[in-house]
Amino acid sequence: MEQERIAILGAGSWGSALAYLLGGKQYHVSLWDRDSELIEAIKAQGRNPKYLPETPLGETVAPTASMKEAVHDAHWIIVAVASDGVRSVVSEAADFLQPRTSILSACKGLEADTGFTTSEQITTLLSDVPYAGLAVLSGPNLATELSHGVPTATVVASYDPQIARSAQEMLMTERTFRVYTNTDVKGVELGGALKNVLAIGAGISDGLGFGDNTKAALMSRGLIEMTQLGVATGGKALTFLGLSGVGDLMATAASRLSRNYRVGLGLAQRKSIEEILTELHQAAEGVPTARAAQVLSRRYQVQTPVFAAINAVLHEGVSAAVAVEELMTRAARDEFGN
Amino acid sequence: MEQERIAILGAGSWGSALAYLLGGKQYHVSLWDRDSELIEAIKAQGRNPKYLPETPLGETVAPTASMKEAVHDAHWIIVAVASDGVRSVVSEAADFLQPRTSILSACKGLEADTGFTTSEQITTLLSDVPYAGLAVLSGPNLATELSHGVPTATVVASYDPQIARSAQEMLMTERTFRVYTNTDVKGVELGGALKNVLAIGAGISDGLGFGDNTKAALMSRGLIEMTQLGVATGGKALTFLGLSGVGDLMATAASRLSRNYRVGLGLAQRKSIEEILTELHQAAEGVPTARAAQVLSRRYQVQTPVFAAINAVLHEGVSAAVAVEELMTRAARDEFGN
Repeated sequence: MEQERIAILGAGSWGSALAYLLGGKQYHVSLWDRDSELIEAIKAQGRNPKYLPETPLGETVAPTASMKEAVHDAHWIIVAVASDGVRSVVSEAADFLQPRTSILSACKGLEADTGFTTSEQITTLLSDVPYAGLAVLSGPNLATELSHGVPTATVVASYDPQIARSAQEMLMTERTFRVYTNTDVKGVELGGALKNVLAIGAGISDGLGFGDNTKAALMSRGLIEMTQLGVATGGKALTFLGLSGVGDLMATAASRLSRNYRVGLGLAQRKSIEEILTELHQAAEGVPTARAAQVLSRRYQVQTPVFAAINAVLHEGVSAAVAVEELMTRAARDEFGN
Repeated sequence: MEQERIAILGAGSWGSALAYLLGGKQYHVSLWDRDSELIEAIKAQGRNPKYLPETPLGETVAPTASMKEAVHDAHWIIVAVASDGVRSVVSEAADFLQPRTSILSACKGLEADTGFTTSEQITTLLSDVPYAGLAVLSGPNLATELSHGVPTATVVASYDPQIARSAQEMLMTERTFRVYTNTDVKGVELGGALKNVLAIGAGISDGLGFGDNTKAALMSRGLIEMTQLGVATGGKALTFLGLSGVGDLMATAASRLSRNYRVGLGLAQRKSIEEILTELHQAAEGVPTARAAQVLSRRYQVQTPVFAAINAVLHEGVSAAVAVEELMTRAARDEFGN
């Protein structure tokens, strides 16, 4: 059988780590990015100097800035751009998409204005374009760890179990990458996206000098909100206990290197969000996703005080100290009541 | 109204922190411990020099080594001993228990041989003794943080909502201690106990040099097992997403100071469990609870590979490296299937 061809759209750290992993499995991988300078640098150095500098990508990975070249003969397309780039990148890819091609979203954010998950954006954009199937990938997966061979587990979800199993087979390796399947696409995507908002909350709490008790309280109250929101929008509660929910939250909230956590630290230091994002040089998915969470919260009438507080600090000029103070002094109640 | 009298049984760090909190609310608190030398030292110094040395307990806290003195006129008894001491302490207290007295368990462990939670031990021991009610307390509550005024949230659960609300009223403070109620006694107790086993697993993973990806995978797979075990024994899945489940797991697994985490670190360094416990000078609840989890797993026919692996390292001489290796190379499957 001809070895399958895979196009990875987005040469950030996660796209590059997946290129490394799949190239190592001898797939023919095209690593596409709009940034042609970055692509040239990757070609020249055989690694991604900007986002994954320690990992040689190998000969099976072909960097390209040509969408046509990447997509036209691909069996799988993996979308690995920041969420605010999904619309433009998928629209561009649509022109070259083949009916036999399946799509895997590796994004972890929601669209700010619509509250759409990436798979919802994709199915909307491709409503008139034939393709073979769609799956999403999410879990506690630090790109640098995966590219260093650290044992890692993840989830692939699709409404079509056969597509989920194909994606599992494509990604799974014997020792490093352990891939579970799930059919709860909505729950898996919401977990991966919403946890970025809570990671901002973790950074705020630590930045204000609160303790592990406070951070754990905020995270677990936030997780309950996330689950109630997820269930209201059609996800399953159990999914939020899994790798793409709690698992990813634990990895992100514990990591002082996480971009979203660092956004929270900055907010605690009274920096403006513009200032923080300029310092980061990279998108932080939790920033637009916090707005999207409020859209969903209103649409489905779910109370989300932790998410609302983080959004108020991010986008409504409320001071971090006041927001946490208000959260921790609300009236006592039943743990899962309203 | 006469200010209520509270007896706290066990002058460890948690019992002492609760004494500090409740004494600050002007309750009359008796702080009992079997260790009369410790009690004398607390009396002399006005603080617990061994387990909570930085916190002055105040005049409303009366240390005592006399069970009768502590219990005979108490409105509430709070059991705050290590789980393997529950039987002897509660049996002794039973002689002085009044029918108007309610009991709050603040323990976080399971009995190794029976798999009993502390409330199950207590109701069994007191089957012929009249008392007013029973509740349990659990959550991400580091004693030193609570005694330093760090904002903290917790859960009080009782099958009797009125008892839960009374306990909530007793414990809640305006700024530091935020108390939620729950009726899922089983779920709250299992979360608080079983998370100690997973904290040992977190220590093993870090001690072997694995990454955040690996630890997050172990914790979230373990959390799913914990939930499935909890549901099989009568708890509610949602409870494990709450403060006493995920919340406490996050605080414990993230803390390198946690005793259970340090047990795991020691096991990764190939120390024997006897050696590790000698170095700790204190009980680590996860050690007997790991055995209890296997009792429950067999009794209710729930598969718990992560818990089984940790137990095998603790009690069956399996090397930590081999156990983690086997876990991470099991066949791929559906995330919530069997």
